[in-house]
Amino acid sequence: MLKPPEHQVAGHRAQDGQLGPLVDGCGIFYKPLQGDGRGDAEVAFYISLFSHPAVPPHILSFFPGFHGTLVLPASDASGPRPHLALDDLLAGLRSPSLIDFKIGGRTWPPDCPEDYFQKCIVKDRESTSVALGFRVSGVQIQDPAGADAFWRPSRAAVRRYMVKDVRRVLRQFVSADPPSPDQKPDCALASAVYGGPDGVLAQLMELKAWFEEQTLFHFYSASVLLVYEKDAAVAAAGQQAGKPSGVRVKLVDFAHVMEGQGVIDHNFLGGLCSLIKFMSDVLNDPEAGGRESIKVQLSCEDGSLENLGI
Amino acid sequence: MLKPPEHQVAGHRAQDGQLGPLVDGCGIFYKPLQGDGRGDAEVAFYISLFSHPAVPPHILSFFPGFHGTLVLPASDASGPRPHLALDDLLAGLRSPSLIDFKIGGRTWPPDCPEDYFQKCIVKDRESTSVALGFRVSGVQIQDPAGADAFWRPSRAAVRRYMVKDVRRVLRQFVSADPPSPDQKPDCALASAVYGGPDGVLAQLMELKAWFEEQTLFHFYSASVLLVYEKDAAVAAAGQQAGKPSGVRVKLVDFAHVMEGQGVIDHNFLGGLCSLIKFMSDVLNDPEAGGRESIKVQLSCEDGSLENLGI
Repeated sequence: MLKPPEHQVAGHRAQDGQLGPLVDGCGIFYKPLQGDGRGDAEVAFYISLFSHPAVPPHILSFFPGFHGTLVLPASDASGPRPHLALDDLLAGLRSPSLIDFKIGGRTWPPDCPEDYFQKCIVKDRESTSVALGFRVSGVQIQDPAGADAFWRPSRAAVRRYMVKDVRRVLRQFVSADPPSPDQKPDCALASAVYGGPDGVLAQLMELKAWFEEQTLFHFYSASVLLVYEKDAAVAAAGQQAGKPSGVRVKLVDFAHVMEGQGVIDHNFLGGLCSLIKFMSDVLNDPEAGGRESIKVQLSCEDGSLENLGI
Repeated sequence: MLKPPEHQVAGHRAQDGQLGPLVDGCGIFYKPLQGDGRGDAEVAFYISLFSHPAVPPHILSFFPGFHGTLVLPASDASGPRPHLALDDLLAGLRSPSLIDFKIGGRTWPPDCPEDYFQKCIVKDRESTSVALGFRVSGVQIQDPAGADAFWRPSRAAVRRYMVKDVRRVLRQFVSADPPSPDQKPDCALASAVYGGPDGVLAQLMELKAWFEEQTLFHFYSASVLLVYEKDAAVAAAGQQAGKPSGVRVKLVDFAHVMEGQGVIDHNFLGGLCSLIKFMSDVLNDPEAGGRESIKVQLSCEDGSLENLGI
């Protein structure tokens, strides 16, 4: 029985008669091929990725498993349509907390049609993409009030995230208490989720090492998706310390992947490094707050240059 | 006696009555402060850089020494004007080969006036900045025909550089033979200049490590400048192997540095990583040429997807 996925924070949704992905409940996620060539591009990417001898096996594990394409009735009742068959990244999870980061200061490739460039650059400048090298595309955080209770900001709210909101949601994502406007995130699960030998940071560092070398693919508009379950993380953080928190770090959305042509993906790599730094800050300073000593002041409106006699 | 610098490949030039930098022949380079706030911004940056406790001493050595400002007669005969007094990075060199890379896929800061954004984005897209994360701003290579003979492409030619031209000039820069359209660069000095414990790559890796952490400054439109002398490099590469080649790796041009505000400079970092990869390619494969095995083909115009039966 195919149905829309229960937990989806970004992308097109198969609900209210819209075209969107479906899951079979047995571990497969069916993503409809978009008709304007983007669907074919994503299929071509998956084939190339999983067949290319230069892609190391430990890197493949960052991608959803690919099981070919299948013609299925589309969720918008428009009839049969080819779908990508991918691993369902949330399979087996009852109450996943998840966050989707679209990586890159730029979501448009160097040689793209002018109208696509214009559309993308406006979004890149309006969001945190230009400033941070990434933006949050969606988030849901389990509320300890109940296994089926989630905190899920609206897409419009996420679209308005500024740098300070990104900082805050990265802390909220690893807090035991539910997000609240009046309370500082407790970051109780930061070590269990972001830290440790199998945590998010260790996995992102592995990806980073690959991006410093790989010149096969440029990932425009692709995302890093983080998924974990609070129960497992609480166990890992608490009396069962050392137990893996079961966090999943995956790359998703490859409709705009381009051939690298011997050049590294400096745009994705820079954004990835920025995300890594933001998470390191949470881990190293869970109490949060600006460390004043590392700020600078480059404005000279107060005449400080003159005061220095130069 | 102040005079225009003999070797200058990028930036405004003090010749033909234009405003430009001057050198005193005793190791100091005087850069006129631009009047629209950019000059003040560069002074503020130097003061902040050299006084900030969080900047490690080994990083300061990548910057020209700063000796305050001085009012001097401007080179365009417009009268007295404040100049930055900086180390002359070419002091003591008779026949320097040099190359200037403007780093970053983006030369405009996130919050900039619309006309400045428009001006920059056109140049970024027309040059290799967007594709590579950096562009060549100028180059001169000593011609072994004579100590005072140099190969120096015109600014217009450098502005038209495509990715393949950047690859070629990175090889020409470390070749014993002068650049020639009919001859493959010999890369005879690649190990002496790019390689080794004090070579360009080792120094750029040190810079990279700092950029992965530092959130003080964002360097828009700044450059990495490489300088070396062929005689010293030939000695280092030849019978006197092990002798340092004396290559200098410096950051220059800080009129558009912004406060980092706790975020890493992912734009500069990504471009720096791309430059590092390009140089590693020269070092690892001085014979040049595409390694076919690491290419991919993502186009599906030939119906290959259908042929795969999916």
